[in-house]
Amino acid sequence: MTRTVIESKTKTVVIGFDEPFCVIGERINPTGRKKLAAELEAGDFSTVEKDALEQVACGAMVLDINAGVVYNSNPNPNETEPPLMTKVVELVQGLVDVPLCIDSSVPAALEAGLAAAQGRPLLNSVTGEEDRLELVLPLVKKYNVPVVAISNDDTGISEDPDVRFAVAKKIVERAADFGIPAHDIVVDPLVMPVGAMATAGQQVFALVRRLREELGVNTTCGASNISFGLPNRHGINAAFLPMAIGAGMTSAIMNPVRKVEMEAIKAANLLMNHDPHGAEWIKFSKILEATEDGTSFADAARASQASSAGGRRGGRRRG
Amino acid sequence: MTRTVIESKTKTVVIGFDEPFCVIGERINPTGRKKLAAELEAGDFSTVEKDALEQVACGAMVLDINAGVVYNSNPNPNETEPPLMTKVVELVQGLVDVPLCIDSSVPAALEAGLAAAQGRPLLNSVTGEEDRLELVLPLVKKYNVPVVAISNDDTGISEDPDVRFAVAKKIVERAADFGIPAHDIVVDPLVMPVGAMATAGQQVFALVRRLREELGVNTTCGASNISFGLPNRHGINAAFLPMAIGAGMTSAIMNPVRKVEMEAIKAANLLMNHDPHGAEWIKFSKILEATEDGTSFADAARASQASSAGGRRGGRRRG
Repeated sequence: MTRTVIESKTKTVVIGFDEPFCVIGERINPTGRKKLAAELEAGDFSTVEKDALEQVACGAMVLDINAGVVYNSNPNPNETEPPLMTKVVELVQGLVDVPLCIDSSVPAALEAGLAAAQGRPLLNSVTGEEDRLELVLPLVKKYNVPVVAISNDDTGISEDPDVRFAVAKKIVERAADFGIPAHDIVVDPLVMPVGAMATAGQQVFALVRRLREELGVNTTCGASNISFGLPNRHGINAAFLPMAIGAGMTSAIMNPVRKVEMEAIKAANLLMNHDPHGAEWIKFSKILEATEDGTSFADAARASQASSAGGRRGGRRRG
Repeated sequence: MTRTVIESKTKTVVIGFDEPFCVIGERINPTGRKKLAAELEAGDFSTVEKDALEQVACGAMVLDINAGVVYNSNPNPNETEPPLMTKVVELVQGLVDVPLCIDSSVPAALEAGLAAAQGRPLLNSVTGEEDRLELVLPLVKKYNVPVVAISNDDTGISEDPDVRFAVAKKIVERAADFGIPAHDIVVDPLVMPVGAMATAGQQVFALVRRLREELGVNTTCGASNISFGLPNRHGINAAFLPMAIGAGMTSAIMNPVRKVEMEAIKAANLLMNHDPHGAEWIKFSKILEATEDGTSFADAARASQASSAGGRRGGRRRG
């Protein structure tokens, strides 16, 4: 049975076929968040702190840490991103106890994050591109961590799911050459927007099954991409996630501060028999009830967390 | 490719693996609705009229008609149900143009409904019980209609999905002896409450796949049973339906006047590539938008229906 083990200093999260769906919080990422990038340049980490606490309260089991900034004072991410990654990793693991996912396209930032993270973080990411394979897989081996493998290569992102499967297979094989086992590879089969490609949903469901059955790997995705460009995106996401979970998807990198999507995941866990006695569902239903008077989901989730058994801060609770 | 064809006088609905999920509206059913039963006894059909129009406006593609009353004036349903079935069928098909599903446990009421219905209604239901097979299958053959086959038999409802599959197989084989093809059998694999049986969701998903692959039949279910006894039932139903659709379920007997469940089904249709160009999703999103000011889903759906291309009343619209 495939189990991808991720650890903080004190907490273990397992991504696996028989585990609750692993929600990886995506919000600590200045890419495309100009305000956050400017704050970080000015040495203001208040948004990062808020995002860390809020995501964990809302149900994130792992936090993705991306420090991809382009400072006005220094446009070279190779210089600015590694020290910022170190700083943010240290800050976040001082605030919450969930494992981290070290996310960068800058190899030196990946290594800085790996050096700073306690436990066994997830690395995000390797692709099938040759230079990326040669740069990232040695880091995966050196730090003995699991890695997200995105199924594009030097030819780009194929619209053909068979090609994306072949890229994933190549990464798994190349990793094996480095002594990295398949259970430490979490494949992202790449989710296309269903508004642009009508077969996008079915492609993902079929690919997830195949990746699981033929390669024995766990899977992840940027879930919200499925609804790009369409109205009422949360409604599409909230159907996509249970369908992907039913097909065998075991994690997603997503915004956990969204009630509708988190509700869909909690319900899917229950329906997959990954929520013994419905304890998590019942707890989540109380949070939903608390939002009925206009309280935000994040506030209701924080209040529920605070009232949980003493001494536990953030992270995953499995009854 | 399995296609179950249901017809009203003017409209055809196909239940099939490559078709949008078929929503069969369940509301015209006095069982457990004492107020409705009393109204019908008094000759008041206003609730039936409202339920017919509202369900079709909200997206029901077929309407289930059950006339299961126990009158104070006459407790014998064998006497009261057949004439009431005739009356309700005639009333409903005068109001809306969708096909009907004739639903009774009283054989004379089934035959009354079949005689009154125009086109090719769905019959609800046969089970694996011997007396039921011998009573219902001849009616199915005589009227050349499709039938819902519920997978319980003389031993009751088994908690073992293999037994429920075997019952479904027996019904399909027995129907074949009558010259009834598998594509005219819509199997209900029976949905157990997940709160009482933790494997209930997974049982249904596995059974639906098997029924489809091994028997080649369409499937249906009483969807809301999955969430019985648990809090926030609509959240569970709204994850269950997309997961069941992903597993291959092709219809459900359900309440279409529920926004959350209908949204989940519309999104699942889109994700299964059963909504060309997202036309239905975009139309549905406009109905959701119209509910943001407090307008009820039913009222917003009716307004949307009224503003659609002239001359069409109710039923299925496929752009």
